[in-house]
Amino acid sequence: MRVDVYPTVSSMPDAEVFAGRVAVVIDVLRATSTITTALANGADTVVPVLAPTEAFAVAQANPARAFILGGERQSVRIPGFHLGNSPLEYTETRVRGRPLLFTTTNGTRAIRAAGTASTVYIAAFLNAPAVARELSTLGRDVAICCAGTHDQFSLEDVGCAGAIIEFMGRADAPLELNDLGYVAREIYRKFAGRLADLLHQSEHGQSLLKLGLQADLLFCSQLGSLSLLPRYGNGQVSV
Amino acid sequence: MRVDVYPTVSSMPDAEVFAGRVAVVIDVLRATSTITTALANGADTVVPVLAPTEAFAVAQANPARAFILGGERQSVRIPGFHLGNSPLEYTETRVRGRPLLFTTTNGTRAIRAAGTASTVYIAAFLNAPAVARELSTLGRDVAICCAGTHDQFSLEDVGCAGAIIEFMGRADAPLELNDLGYVAREIYRKFAGRLADLLHQSEHGQSLLKLGLQADLLFCSQLGSLSLLPRYGNGQVSV
Repeated sequence: MRVDVYPTVSSMPDAEVFAGRVAVVIDVLRATSTITTALANGADTVVPVLAPTEAFAVAQANPARAFILGGERQSVRIPGFHLGNSPLEYTETRVRGRPLLFTTTNGTRAIRAAGTASTVYIAAFLNAPAVARELSTLGRDVAICCAGTHDQFSLEDVGCAGAIIEFMGRADAPLELNDLGYVAREIYRKFAGRLADLLHQSEHGQSLLKLGLQADLLFCSQLGSLSLLPRYGNGQVSV
Repeated sequence: MRVDVYPTVSSMPDAEVFAGRVAVVIDVLRATSTITTALANGADTVVPVLAPTEAFAVAQANPARAFILGGERQSVRIPGFHLGNSPLEYTETRVRGRPLLFTTTNGTRAIRAAGTASTVYIAAFLNAPAVARELSTLGRDVAICCAGTHDQFSLEDVGCAGAIIEFMGRADAPLELNDLGYVAREIYRKFAGRLADLLHQSEHGQSLLKLGLQADLLFCSQLGSLSLLPRYGNGQVSV
């Protein structure tokens, strides 16, 4: 079983490689943490869109669906949106039974880009053990796509890829990893048991701290707190 | 002092960022190891070209210069070229006083792409301590550009970036690193004192081993065996 990790949206493999793989998309800070949390709290579905204008257009064209608009630009809530990109905002009271339109700088682009894979899972530290279990059961080759930050390598996404690889590993069936897969597992092992430190070390974590969002870092570092498996297909993420 | 590491040619910063930086280009297996070795053995200059056709054209247009043609495609010597991409081929007997035209799959593309930086050094494990010393002396912000392999993250290039960062570090002037710079230093620290193991672990190293090129891996792992500082400018690498 082969697992390749890709650091950014622009480094993702082409559609041909993707087509035969299970894809996993990771944007720990914060898109995939937030999407997973929203679905865990009962959101009906999350529709990733690339631009705020696209979100407004879809919402306006479908007033009966009463979409919640969520997401960020430069880490803050988009003007006219109901919610930002903090998982702490997506409480059960706010999201249960509701569909979401969601756009972020890096994460939603990555989800859409992975859409040519036959199966696409959404992962964060929150559900990494559950995703790893599922991938082991499927037994197919995997492409783990890190969103990165502004199309640069990001420590927290690669660390989460490493967590998934670590939990997939079994002594009787060693995984074949690309170089970044190997490095990802090393990063995870360095920070295992102290993932909040990993998020504090990361550049993106540092920039969120400056915005006073330490609670988000702590929330997103909760390894395995959720067991659901959000999947992307037909333009939406659901469980 | 800020040091950013970029994993591949396509992830390199744009010309504007480059312009204010010292750039370092790394392709441990094997372009920058080979260029550094050729210059250490007295080659007059190394002209990186993108395609074999470009090499033939330049050589034909300048017969008096008696260029040596060197490089590879799919890791083997290009038909019609004098030498391949093994540093072991670039002996003093062959290269002293001669100019080289050189083209490889990843390395020469990376060197040319970094050409918008004001100063561009060529680095490998062979001269990493010397490059680090020079960068510390200059005291300017640095962009370390890994060539990668087929535009994917490669362990050996990022590990070499980590070596440079490690040797640049001083207690009294901590470096500001991007996430990949941090990871690079961790990789180097994991393999310090056993860089041949790092090259054997890497995917590119594995593929060279299959071609019977273990001697190249051992040669390229010799940290600090050369102290020269090849620089790229005006279309050529020289010391």
